[in-house]
Amino acid sequence: MLAGIEAGGTKFVCAVAEHPAYIRDRIEIPTTTPQETFSRVRAFLDRQKSISAIGVASFGPVDINRHSASYGALLNTPKPGWAGASYIRALSHYRVPIKLESDVSGACLGEYVHGAGQHQKTLAYVTVGTGIGAGIVHDGRVRGGIGHYEMGHIQVRHDLARDPYTGRCPYHGDCLEGLACGPAILDRWGQNLSSLGKAEIALEAEYLSQLAATIILTHMPGRIIFGGGVMKTPGLIEALREQTRKRLSGYVTTGPLGRDFGYFIVPPGLGDDAGITGALVLARQAAHSTTDR
Amino acid sequence: MLAGIEAGGTKFVCAVAEHPAYIRDRIEIPTTTPQETFSRVRAFLDRQKSISAIGVASFGPVDINRHSASYGALLNTPKPGWAGASYIRALSHYRVPIKLESDVSGACLGEYVHGAGQHQKTLAYVTVGTGIGAGIVHDGRVRGGIGHYEMGHIQVRHDLARDPYTGRCPYHGDCLEGLACGPAILDRWGQNLSSLGKAEIALEAEYLSQLAATIILTHMPGRIIFGGGVMKTPGLIEALREQTRKRLSGYVTTGPLGRDFGYFIVPPGLGDDAGITGALVLARQAAHSTTDR
Repeated sequence: MLAGIEAGGTKFVCAVAEHPAYIRDRIEIPTTTPQETFSRVRAFLDRQKSISAIGVASFGPVDINRHSASYGALLNTPKPGWAGASYIRALSHYRVPIKLESDVSGACLGEYVHGAGQHQKTLAYVTVGTGIGAGIVHDGRVRGGIGHYEMGHIQVRHDLARDPYTGRCPYHGDCLEGLACGPAILDRWGQNLSSLGKAEIALEAEYLSQLAATIILTHMPGRIIFGGGVMKTPGLIEALREQTRKRLSGYVTTGPLGRDFGYFIVPPGLGDDAGITGALVLARQAAHSTTDR
Repeated sequence: MLAGIEAGGTKFVCAVAEHPAYIRDRIEIPTTTPQETFSRVRAFLDRQKSISAIGVASFGPVDINRHSASYGALLNTPKPGWAGASYIRALSHYRVPIKLESDVSGACLGEYVHGAGQHQKTLAYVTVGTGIGAGIVHDGRVRGGIGHYEMGHIQVRHDLARDPYTGRCPYHGDCLEGLACGPAILDRWGQNLSSLGKAEIALEAEYLSQLAATIILTHMPGRIIFGGGVMKTPGLIEALREQTRKRLSGYVTTGPLGRDFGYFIVPPGLGDDAGITGALVLARQAAHSTTDR
């Protein structure tokens, strides 16, 4: 049996399955302290018959470098009590292979294997919610460098005359996440994007299209999935497609980029289950190769 | 014997070697028409005893997707006569494996194997010259998606009050390449950067640091090499390091990013031989695996 943990700042989703697409049992646990949360995770896992591997898709930043001293631990997360908390420490007594990636890399992998990323060679997944993040999967493997990507923090063009909001990223102020994440929308307009009008949706789309264009120029995926709470706003994905097409100005026309952006930028195929499905796929990868990555 | 071709818009460098680090024979050919240039390349190759594989690092955009109908051909290049010219067609009669990548991916591979990228897991190489481009090598392989990356065309923050120059990219106007490539410097100031002062170098470094930061957030390399003619300007790499560090604001501190940027952003170890060395490494990869990529 494979075990998957989708670890978010608000809740943990744990699931077990023989095959990632068919979840046998699942539980949702509110994210409180690491001690309490991990003890409820273990209680769930202990109820299962036999676990062969564990996959974790975690909120970040998290150390995913196996050669690092802090491998498996949350890094400088603003979530109180969680900096330094370690999945490896919390789960090592099961003595099974564990594979860990960022939440959005996990969601990308879930979509790649069982969702809207099937039949792609290179897939990008972006989430726009409490934060903004992106993951890339190529040939069935999560891509990374010396750590997971941090694409939510790219700088964007910000016209202060049109949008005087200075951004809420504690590190960069008006980076993409600082200007366009869910809390920034609330901060700036006092409402969710779904309650706002065309002009606000166009501004949000303009910021997000800068990430879409950057992902195209830096990773050349065959498709980009945009998920997360903010993306549920009606009309946003259509505006995003149009702005991204304009921004590229016909420069890149390889494959799907020369055709319909309705095929290129899409919502998740697995809805809110992309992350937990990806965590189970990570478990399956861990079971097949303990030395992988 | 391995054969390498570094194909540039101004000149082709061809070389043969049993080992990529030790070139046996080499020739430089001015880039005129495809017919004439390829016939001189073939004359050089025909002089060699036995060629087992050919590696090509080409100016772009070039189709590197083996499953594409135009695989091996130059795409919408502004270089007169070259759009549609095909390396595969020009070289197929040798009946040896051919491996093709963009020029800057080739240079990245050369540096990874024999230059300043040795001992890295993930390496980025940026060239700043007639154009601006970047390549990534991870675990000894060039990374790409549905095509090679086009990072030179990322949008950057551009303060028109400080720099009224509108950029020279035919597609995007003031994208990074449009503002910061060698010809843009000449256009704006009428001189090369080496003849200009601190303020001009600082502005150039500011633009380039936006690419460095984007590469960090999107690829997390362990090191970035900055090469190309413009980077030979005294003081530029130092200013670039400082601006990149400031731009990240201490957000990413993984590995070398938490330490000295003098180690993280460096000039090429192979000088102007990065590209031809990479082309020979591509030939070696082609010889070892014809189905690779």
